[in-house]
Amino acid sequence: MVFTRPESVTTWGSLGGPLLAREIHLAALPAGLPEPGDFAVVTVELAPPGPGQVLIRNLCMAVEPYPPSPAHPGAPPFPVGQPLDGPAVGEVVESMDDELRPGDLVLHGYGWRDQVVLDARSVLRIDPVPGVDPSAYLGALGMSTLAAYVGLLDIAGLRPGEVVFVSGAAGEIGVMAGQIARLKGAARVIGTAGSQARADQLTRRFGFDAAFADAEGEVAERLAAAAPDGIDVCFDNVGGEHLEAAIAALRPHGRVALCGVAPQNATETAPGPRNLALAIGKRLTLRGFSVYDHLWRMPDMLAEVGAWVREGRIVFQETVVHGLEFAPAAYVGLLRGENTGKMIVRI
Amino acid sequence: MVFTRPESVTTWGSLGGPLLAREIHLAALPAGLPEPGDFAVVTVELAPPGPGQVLIRNLCMAVEPYPPSPAHPGAPPFPVGQPLDGPAVGEVVESMDDELRPGDLVLHGYGWRDQVVLDARSVLRIDPVPGVDPSAYLGALGMSTLAAYVGLLDIAGLRPGEVVFVSGAAGEIGVMAGQIARLKGAARVIGTAGSQARADQLTRRFGFDAAFADAEGEVAERLAAAAPDGIDVCFDNVGGEHLEAAIAALRPHGRVALCGVAPQNATETAPGPRNLALAIGKRLTLRGFSVYDHLWRMPDMLAEVGAWVREGRIVFQETVVHGLEFAPAAYVGLLRGENTGKMIVRI
Repeated sequence: MVFTRPESVTTWGSLGGPLLAREIHLAALPAGLPEPGDFAVVTVELAPPGPGQVLIRNLCMAVEPYPPSPAHPGAPPFPVGQPLDGPAVGEVVESMDDELRPGDLVLHGYGWRDQVVLDARSVLRIDPVPGVDPSAYLGALGMSTLAAYVGLLDIAGLRPGEVVFVSGAAGEIGVMAGQIARLKGAARVIGTAGSQARADQLTRRFGFDAAFADAEGEVAERLAAAAPDGIDVCFDNVGGEHLEAAIAALRPHGRVALCGVAPQNATETAPGPRNLALAIGKRLTLRGFSVYDHLWRMPDMLAEVGAWVREGRIVFQETVVHGLEFAPAAYVGLLRGENTGKMIVRI
Repeated sequence: MVFTRPESVTTWGSLGGPLLAREIHLAALPAGLPEPGDFAVVTVELAPPGPGQVLIRNLCMAVEPYPPSPAHPGAPPFPVGQPLDGPAVGEVVESMDDELRPGDLVLHGYGWRDQVVLDARSVLRIDPVPGVDPSAYLGALGMSTLAAYVGLLDIAGLRPGEVVFVSGAAGEIGVMAGQIARLKGAARVIGTAGSQARADQLTRRFGFDAAFADAEGEVAERLAAAAPDGIDVCFDNVGGEHLEAAIAALRPHGRVALCGVAPQNATETAPGPRNLALAIGKRLTLRGFSVYDHLWRMPDMLAEVGAWVREGRIVFQETVVHGLEFAPAAYVGLLRGENTGKMIVRI
């Protein structure tokens, strides 16, 4: 895909005329996979910020595999005739809030538009890491990385010298969990992926010590082969058989950060780990978490992982599309798997 | 059963002659349930305590449902021709150790004999609770109570006002867990038991707010009825369906102390909780533990629960048999279910 940026029609800020924003709306509900023609660029007039509010100019946004997508048949699609939403990084242009000032960089959930007025409490101020592009806060320094960071350090209490198993390691969170584990001094990092090709990427590109493809009925055996002396920490993105294999491999006082679950393991009829009773004798801790409870750790993550990103010690990939009006094409491309790594739109 | 104590033949201490101890040995391996005739009282001469050792006069011992018992077919039986063992409380008579002094009360694992020489590090000194009989340290203030205390407070982090579910609550640990939960300010304590009669006891005698009998396929439904607004803490002694019901009922940030498992849920083919993925969204923590990692909490438990025992705020039951020579009969009686509560032998 080749994208070029057309002439901008936006007026930044509210000085000198009405405050206009360009937004991407879903024009019609697609029957199957959406096409760029299902979306429309709409220019709307914004009310200027009231007390406690800020006007934000969006710099970039991430395109997430949200509905309407066959991958999420149960979730509601975006409403028709309203702007879509998703993670974005913006700059405060005007502030009616005591904490935020013009020029501040903020992370929020109102992408798919070039500017927006928001309550200050619904945005997260970012302390910028020198030398790092704003799009990094949607990828290598974004919520997935915060989830990996919090899951490993706060939920699983990773200590240097431990053996870490990351299930579903080729996903956005998993690939960061493996790298953070290694940089925090794990003795050995093992990952699983959905295919042998992706497993090979984990060891070749992302520094995993061992990785293997999911193979139904063989996860425990493969994990035992990759970690013959057992594991200390499991960062679980899959559940089901992967979790059962981890419980079998965990050494005494091992910890499991329950971060995610594959769709087939999320149903009420999916079999649970048959060996959970081992958690008693082995004194295991299994703990579910949501990154949204741990946003206060963002500054710590930015400081620590930000330094690694700047030093080139973290491998991450992004596909960048230039121009808000190409966001629908980026979204369709993401659903078709045309991206490598995070799909970013610069606005 | 009526027991009377015959004339003692023991010489306390090592002064004035050889140091003799009476021990109960397994004389022959029983084919099925043991009979008192399978045991023998043997008088042995002990070597006096060496450096770091103490001579202990046992005051009382607990009879546990250890093998040889059909309930534990997989565990090794006591060896023939050697003393049996089990929890006992004794008094230090002579000490060659710097920490322990004559008169100190100690808990150890060498019951089934009237006196014994042990390394000081293999006994636990008890700070006696005034007004409490030594046998209490084997029952209401013993290891089961420490497990209940640690499981609720340290593993599950119980806070006042929370709703607590104890599975297998009619057992030694469960009945204490329910009472400690109540005394620590739980808003509501719910228990399960193996029969309706035992469930009724939990509410009538032990202060549970609600209790119900295990009924296969109905635990979740009954728990939901007993705790319509959900639970915060599960103290699990059963696993399997009980744990699945708890996971369904737990509110966000709920905690499970994994303390024990029923034999049918301990096999590798037993189904695991099918709803474990709920632990992610609900931010649940499941943590297995062993009381032996937490012996340092014994003084805290003794101070807190000991005060409740002295004040009559803890309900506990014991069946007391007088005389070491009746320990085999007490053991056989225990295996036949002739006891009410803890089976104690005063020595």
